[in-house]
This record gives sequence, structure tokens and C-alpha cells, in this order.
Amino acid sequence: MLPDAPIGVFDSGIGGLTVLAALMKALPHERFMYLGDTARLPYGTKTAQTVIRYAEQAAEALVRHGVKCLVVACNTAASVGLDAVRARAGALPVIGVIEPGAQAACAATSSGHIAVIATEATVRGGAYQRAILERRADARVQQLATQMLVALAEEGLVDGPVARVVVNHYLGPLFAADPPDTLVLGCTHFPALAPTIREVVGPKINIVDSALTTAAAVRDQLLAAGIARTAGSQSVQFIATDGPERFARAGSRFLGRTIEARRVELIDL
Amino acid sequence: MLPDAPIGVFDSGIGGLTVLAALMKALPHERFMYLGDTARLPYGTKTAQTVIRYAEQAAEALVRHGVKCLVVACNTAASVGLDAVRARAGALPVIGVIEPGAQAACAATSSGHIAVIATEATVRGGAYQRAILERRADARVQQLATQMLVALAEEGLVDGPVARVVVNHYLGPLFAADPPDTLVLGCTHFPALAPTIREVVGPKINIVDSALTTAAAVRDQLLAAGIARTAGSQSVQFIATDGPERFARAGSRFLGRTIEARRVELIDL
Repeated sequence: MLPDAPIGVFDSGIGGLTVLAALMKALPHERFMYLGDTARLPYGTKTAQTVIRYAEQAAEALVRHGVKCLVVACNTAASVGLDAVRARAGALPVIGVIEPGAQAACAATSSGHIAVIATEATVRGGAYQRAILERRADARVQQLATQMLVALAEEGLVDGPVARVVVNHYLGPLFAADPPDTLVLGCTHFPALAPTIREVVGPKINIVDSALTTAAAVRDQLLAAGIARTAGSQSVQFIATDGPERFARAGSRFLGRTIEARRVELIDL
Repeated sequence: MLPDAPIGVFDSGIGGLTVLAALMKALPHERFMYLGDTARLPYGTKTAQTVIRYAEQAAEALVRHGVKCLVVACNTAASVGLDAVRARAGALPVIGVIEPGAQAACAATSSGHIAVIATEATVRGGAYQRAILERRADARVQQLATQMLVALAEEGLVDGPVARVVVNHYLGPLFAADPPDTLVLGCTHFPALAPTIREVVGPKINIVDSALTTAAAVRDQLLAAGIARTAGSQSVQFIATDGPERFARAGSRFLGRTIEARRVELIDL
């Protein structure tokens, strides 16, 4: 596998672009290929069985495109489908967002009381809880499915009264009495809402976004495997299974830079 | 085609159960087969091309199951995919929710100023606007995509402060100055939010839900085709493409009666 091959990043849609943004910052010489399964999003409300099947198909498509490693940038897919993706990836390194997120949470917490907000499917899968308890057996993990936050982020309603009321609906009770000292944003859509979340939970809570630690984990694995690209300019190729216009419009907000719809390739999985 | 064959009803997920509820009330002797494409929901944020493909597959599945007519209970699918469904249905009657909704809106309005709230894809397709203008050429139609209302209804957050703030976010500006006299609920998820919508728009606005007029249209077509079932007890069979548990749990709210998860058949489209 050549260092010049692209890093494959996949997500159910556009949320994973927050992870891509962190990867692009950490790895300035790499080529990236980002696949968003926009025809079938969201994964977060679907069963493990269906999410696994979709994740396998996405992984196979990226492997066919010649990527050198796979980043599962969707918490739901990483939570329930990482083993299935590894089985499809052969010898390629596969990095999910759950392990780095759990690692960051354990590094941040003092009390060991950690809250995880995520999609229904991620909560049901329980992967964050397992990953945190493996690192810190005395941790107390509270998981909460916060499905409406996905819709808020997708609509770009990330601040203002609507966002505040919805965030408070979920997090108000959780942080009222006996609050956790650390909050894991267990869905790649949620960093867009971080300022509003901060307003609701107050200044003292550690807010953990797995994007940064995931980017560090990817860099370490590429170096260890001897396939990091250390010179040359960065590039990104976007692939979606539906709606290049919506991908470009909503995705630009998540990536923090403009995506042009005509540069988004449409494929069928 | 025998009167004893079931009426096929399909939707992207569970919203169409509000239409099924109206059908069950209007047609007490019929057998029903309801298909929710829960593995690929929602349709409302996807392109016409993708929605058409999914609608064709759902229609084919119901035709294979031997239905005597097809009700497209999803506004998005009816808005962009009705012709494609007709092409797959052969001689079977096909009834969408758009035409009956437009008819009800024209019957309700005095001023001719009508607002339609719907999904992104339904608004983009413009089918409500066309159907209303065909009936009343001087009508003034305002369409608004209100995607967050789908998430609210799916989560069961249909009243209380969260619902009120989100509904007001969309409808407050629309009903502030020069308000329409009629509001069409152009998505089968929205009737669940009707009491909150009523609170926001006030007591004078006509709120049109196409479920009732769709049920009347189905009854008329069955009678005209000589395939109505006029005796025998009612029955319903549920089919979903993912998550019988979630279908049963969230679906029971939309149908207004309990659905048991073990009675939901799982198929692949």
C-alpha cells in the first residue's frame, strides 16, 4: 500500500465532515476520500443489523477505490459495525471514533462520572460505555439518546432559542443534580451545537469531541504502518449516495469550508 | 381482482399510519397491508431520483403481495413518485395524498391564500402548489419546508415547550402579517402536532390534514372499480424494512392503537 493512496473516511451523511476537518488539520500532506451514505441516512434510528450491512457496503466501496486506511467517522457505524468493517478491510488499518472518544473522556474526567449523548442506535449498542469501563473500571457512565440534536445540526439551527430549548430538554435534567463532570459528544453532528451545549451545561463541564483524538489515532497508525504521506499537497474527494446539492450546502457548515456540489461524485451502494 | 384482496398502503416509515387510521375508520370491512420503508427513511431530505426508486420498489413489493389498490401515504413519495408508482401498478388504482389534500384546501379557503408545510423534497417538487392552482387558478400558495417537525413527531415531542418553540420558529413569521387562511399539513407526521400548531396559528385558520379526504377518495375508487369489500371483519398486516420494535413503539402513537412488534413482518426491498 502506497503512502500516496487516500485515507478513506465514511459516515452516514455529512456529520463525519467534522472528523474530516480534524484529519485535514492534523495531516496536511494526505489525500482524503470522504463517502457520505446520504441516500440512507440517518443510521442512528436503525437497527444494528441494517447499520452493519450499510457500513459493510460503504467500506467495500472505499476499498475498491484504493484507500490505504479506513476511518469510520460515524459514531453509530463505529459503535455497532467496526468488526464488520474490519472484516471487509483485510489488512488495512481501520479506526473508529468510539475508542478515541472514550480515551479522551477518561483523560478529561476527574470524578469518573461521564455522560455520553448519542443516537438511539449508538446508545443501544453501548460501545462507549464498554470502551470507557475498559479504561476506567470505576467510571459511572450515563448514556442518553438525543435524536433531535441531529435534526437541529442538519438544519443549521445550532444556536438561538430553538437550539437552546431542545438542548435544554435533553441536558437540563442530566445536569441538574449530581451532574457528570464530562460530556462526550457521541455523534459527529453534535460539535456544531457545542456553543449552545456549553451555555446549557455551564463552564465547568469537560466537553469531549472525538474528532481531535481520532485524528491523532489515525496519524499514529499511519506512521506505525509506514504509510504516512509526509510531503505533497493535501486533497479531498467527496462521494455521496444522494443529493450532491444538499451534501454541499449542509456539508460546508460541518467541514468549515465551502464544498462545491459539482465536485461531489454520486455513487450507488 | 377480488374485493377480499388487501388495500396496500405505503410510506417511508410510520407517518403514513395517520392515513391508515383514517382509512380504517372509513372502511370497516377492508383488509389492509401497510409497508413502512423504515430502513431508508426519511424520504423528505432526499432527491426526487432516489425517492422515485424507493417508491417503485415499495410499490412492487405490495403488488407482489397481491394488493387490490395502492395508497401512497407519504407526501414526499406522492409528490415526486406518483407517476412512477402508477407505472409499476399496472391496472390497480393508485391514490396519493396530494390531490385529496389540495382538494380539501380549496374547499376550506375563502381568501385563496393557502400555506403548505411539508418536507424539503415535497416543497421542491411543488406538487401541492400545482394541484391547488389547477383547482383554483387565483390561489396564492406559500410552501415551507419544516424538516424539524418530522423529528419532533418521530420523538413523540408533540406538545410542551420544545414543540411550541420549534413550531413557532417555522409558523410564527408565516402567520405574523398577511396570514394565509388555510394551512395544509403536507406531511403525514404533522397531524400529531396539530394541537400545538393550532396554538401557534390561532383559532381562525383552517388546518387541513389530507388523511380524511384521502380515505374518502380511496372508498370512492374502490366502489367505482367494483372491488370494495362490504362485509367481513377488518384486518391489518404490518411490514417494515427495519426495526419492528421502533416501528411498533413510535407507530402506535401515529395509528392511535397498539401495534405489537412481533406482528411486524421484516422484509428487504
